[in-house]
Amino acid sequence: MSVSLAGRQTWLFDPAPLLLGTGSVVGKREGEGPLAADFDVIHKDPYLGQKSYEAAEQKFLEEACNLAVRWAGIGRDELNLHFSGDLQNQITSSSFTARSLGVPYFGLFGACSTMVEGMQLAALAAAGGAGRLTLASAGSHTNAAEKQFRYPNEYGAQKNETTQITVTGAGAAVIAAPDFPAKPSGAQIRLTSATVGRVVDLNVADPFNMGAAMAPAACDTLLAHFKERGVRPDHYDLILTGDLGRVGSNLLLDLLANAGVFIPSGQLNDAGKMIFSDEPKNLAGGSGCGCLAATACGHIRREMARGRLKRVLLVATGALLSPLTTQQKESIPGIAHAISWEVV
Amino acid sequence: MSVSLAGRQTWLFDPAPLLLGTGSVVGKREGEGPLAADFDVIHKDPYLGQKSYEAAEQKFLEEACNLAVRWAGIGRDELNLHFSGDLQNQITSSSFTARSLGVPYFGLFGACSTMVEGMQLAALAAAGGAGRLTLASAGSHTNAAEKQFRYPNEYGAQKNETTQITVTGAGAAVIAAPDFPAKPSGAQIRLTSATVGRVVDLNVADPFNMGAAMAPAACDTLLAHFKERGVRPDHYDLILTGDLGRVGSNLLLDLLANAGVFIPSGQLNDAGKMIFSDEPKNLAGGSGCGCLAATACGHIRREMARGRLKRVLLVATGALLSPLTTQQKESIPGIAHAISWEVV
Repeated sequence: MSVSLAGRQTWLFDPAPLLLGTGSVVGKREGEGPLAADFDVIHKDPYLGQKSYEAAEQKFLEEACNLAVRWAGIGRDELNLHFSGDLQNQITSSSFTARSLGVPYFGLFGACSTMVEGMQLAALAAAGGAGRLTLASAGSHTNAAEKQFRYPNEYGAQKNETTQITVTGAGAAVIAAPDFPAKPSGAQIRLTSATVGRVVDLNVADPFNMGAAMAPAACDTLLAHFKERGVRPDHYDLILTGDLGRVGSNLLLDLLANAGVFIPSGQLNDAGKMIFSDEPKNLAGGSGCGCLAATACGHIRREMARGRLKRVLLVATGALLSPLTTQQKESIPGIAHAISWEVV
Repeated sequence: MSVSLAGRQTWLFDPAPLLLGTGSVVGKREGEGPLAADFDVIHKDPYLGQKSYEAAEQKFLEEACNLAVRWAGIGRDELNLHFSGDLQNQITSSSFTARSLGVPYFGLFGACSTMVEGMQLAALAAAGGAGRLTLASAGSHTNAAEKQFRYPNEYGAQKNETTQITVTGAGAAVIAAPDFPAKPSGAQIRLTSATVGRVVDLNVADPFNMGAAMAPAACDTLLAHFKERGVRPDHYDLILTGDLGRVGSNLLLDLLANAGVFIPSGQLNDAGKMIFSDEPKNLAGGSGCGCLAATACGHIRREMARGRLKRVLLVATGALLSPLTTQQKESIPGIAHAISWEVV
């Protein structure tokens, strides 16, 4: 058996499934940020020629999926499973993408944790015998998300410095069974372990400070991962959360320190901090399903291919709120899912 | 390895994971229907003492999960994984239930297909080595869903005869690894195979006729299941779709007949038809995540325990629309996921 359970919530994959190909597509603001050179495609038109932002979001997601399939060097009809999610009500951009792709499909909702949720399940299916080739994808669109969760960007409402900006973009990853033939050249990246998160809620109720709502979940999952996998933080060259932004990242460091875990700066980073520059206009950084998805599938995969990173732990964090639960005075439950990418 | 792939989209489990316990909780209308005697709990108060229908939906779901855990004879802290989904925007009743339970959690969205989507993934995890004990759950609330997708029930808007009525209720199932000790007495039900659905869209765009939008997906999944598992329809004592209602069920029979597959009446039924009587006030029947979930986890499990059914194929169908996609003139993509329960 290629999958084993360590502790309550951690999976070890040995032999481990293969990251066969990735795709990353982003919008204009992301394409002007520090990671620009590492995305496959940058679109300047937020509509992508569509009539609505929601339809444009679907196009970003479709393009990322098609690029991942092309990178993987396979045909779309060879895929056994497709896991996808997004922020739209009833995750319609994912379902409509699945309609275009025609691959057997599981819809997911994990807010900004979705990309790792999808990769965990895709890796489980690939390692567990349920799929030779699987696809995980996630995306978001700033104009579709902001109008749904807060205010349409076009209103120009004042935002405070704890606010994160939803990323316009998508990422997709093709994951193959452990015995699938690796490409003859280039670094082989394998998905070696995963820790499934629990919902953690420390009673933060401010939808303009989601980093604070999600940091406790990231801490909970990281502590479980280190303990259950039996590794120290320095096993990894990089632990990449997404998306705590500037505020949540500092909180995470404090929470970890309180638990006796110290991670040197430089070894811990956050996709929400990396994807935009730290100019004031970018507030606390990026967020949205597309942020970690595009950062991991674009920048991180390339850094691993370049040999600059060998072992990365991706920790995607989700704020499981809705506008209705905010109106009903509920606090914001957070969750974080972790998966390790390692060059072997 | 306990999981193998048959064709593109069917999983065979051998040895197969065990259905260790189920829970079913419904509201007043369902509690007055033909299946009333087979639900664990019937609540007459649609609010369950909560301040909103959404909070009540969460209570239904929590109670079903807790009942399934109690039936299974285990402790909640023994569960490795919880898969759940519902119809609320951002599936908040599931995420808030997961917050109460404290079990590592995957949020799903498959509309009314969610219960089977969850059981498929829970069975994969249990059979594939990723969890000794897993939980799948799904729920819906008529007053929460109708106001979100169509009109608040309180408006008393006229409905036509193709309309289905969202069920108030929830179901939950505890699924154990194949080698988990079965209970010494009673029928052993195992999850023997699963077929993951593709999105099918024949361009139905009427949100008051969702049975018609979902029937083609049910047909597509059934044909794939028979072919890939290598069984004829009469392998099963009952093929239970959910929720095509009266209109969609007739369409499914026509579509199957066109494909050369004939299923005798009595061997094919639909949870949306079974859960309410066929009085005109019940229109085309029930729908919603809770419909198949409560019917399978309440009535079907008991019929199998009574020895009246030995092999059942559950085919949950989802209409992957949102109110926004309807306003944007999109058609309704459908999906159907199948899982077999067999007494061994």
